[in-house]
Amino acid sequence: MELIPGNSLITASPEDGRALAVLIARNTIHAIQPDVEVLRRNRGEDAADPDGRAVAAHMISIEFATIAAANNYWR
Amino acid sequence: MELIPGNSLITASPEDGRALAVLIARNTIHAIQPDVEVLRRNRGEDAADPDGRAVAAHMISIEFATIAAANNYWR
Amino acid sequence: MELIPGNSLITASPEDGRALAVLIARNTIHAIQPDVEVLRRNRGEDAADPDGRAVAAHMISIEFATIAAANNYWR
Amino acid sequence: MELIPGNSLITASPEDGRALAVLIARNTIHAIQPDVEVLRRNRGEDAADPDGRAVAAHMISIEFATIAAANNYWR
Amino acid sequence: MELIPGNSLITASPEDGRALAVLIARNTIHAIQPDVEVLRRNRGEDAADPDGRAVAAHMISIEFATIAAANNYWR
Amino acid sequence: MELIPGNSLITASPEDGRALAVLIARNTIHAIQPDVEVLRRNRGEDAADPDGRAVAAHMISIEFATIAAANNYWR
Repeated sequence: MELIPGNSLITASPEDGRALAVLIARNTIHAIQPDVEVLRRNRGEDAADPDGRAVAAHMISIEFATIAAANNYWR
Repeated sequence: MELIPGNSLITASPEDGRALAVLIARNTIHAIQPDVEVLRRNRGEDAADPDGRAVAAHMISIEFATIAAANNYWR
Repeated sequence: MELIPGNSLITASPEDGRALAVLIARNTIHAIQPDVEVLRRNRGEDAADPDGRAVAAHMISIEFATIAAANNYWR
Repeated sequence: MELIPGNSLITASPEDGRALAVLIARNTIHAIQPDVEVLRRNRGEDAADPDGRAVAAHMISIEFATIAAANNYWR
Repeated sequence: MELIPGNSLITASPEDGRALAVLIARNTIHAIQPDVEVLRRNRGEDAADPDGRAVAAHMISIEFATIAAANNYWR
Repeated sequence: MELIPGNSLITASPEDGRALAVLIARNTIHAIQPDVEVLRRNRGEDAADPDGRAVAAHMISIEFATIAAANNYWR
């Protein structure tokens, strides 16, 4: 699995940049969780778990800051 | 649902930029929470839950830093 | 209520910039907490709650970083 | 009490900049904690509380990043 | 053990940069955990522990931001 | 004890920069923990405590971002 889908931080728009941030966060969480069975079970719990959402949300904010800078903020 | 409302980080003022940061944070939290029923229930609990507020608040600060840079700080 | 008091990130001094960071953090916490009754009750508890202080403190640090950059660090 | 001692982010050296970051973090924590009695009690507990140290440590890191940028990293 | 594999932040691509961020995060976590026995035991628990994943994920996001800036975002 | 060993953020290499980040994080944690006895006891517990590792790890990531910028990423 790629960690950075498309192997580039350049996107056509802020919306695409945000979607990329979501994917990068997800791929990293998968990459650092080697036990697939545990991952599946946790994924089900995460849907109802505010803490699990917090981790993903925080990552996405930081990834998006990096992607936005890479794209010169789509100015 | 759009992740970045208006598909742009450029706003007329800091106040508009902060409001955009709040919306981006909310939209991401919704996007990574697929179970609507759980979301509704959690939303009610979040109102009284300092931890839920903390996650949103932290996201908003980081999103605003990105938006402020995109707008060259509205100087 | 304004999210960004004065609708500007530009301040006369670092001290004023820090005070603005404190206000922006407070206003956002209020804005994402719609239930006033819960807010009042939590506000009382927050005074003795290290976690509540942590959330506000962390927000203020990030807001101040943004404000300091906006003011070119008052150099 | 000043939030930013000396009302400036400019310091003579990295060591002085780090000491300023520590003071700014402390002053903010005091400013957002209005109940002095609670503060005193918490201060005693904080010495043994890894979580209390975590909040202060995290703040100091972010304040120092801001101060270092303000001083062009003392290059 | 090296803290920064290859002693450089420059990589050929975003994918390589992300992989480097993962390694830097892991090496630092090992470096600050001197008791190997505890590390091994914790490593087994971490696989199922959302909190352990959160720490690593957060670190990787920040390391990647630094690496991306070092590489001028591979533009 | 110095907060910034050598009173400089400039290092010869990324590896040296990372080692400096580890030292700065440690020195700050010591500086904000005045009770040596508690520190010693906590240090023993920290070795097995994922939360203690998390605080240090997070600090190191942020300090390294500052040091990397100071060294223009050793390009």
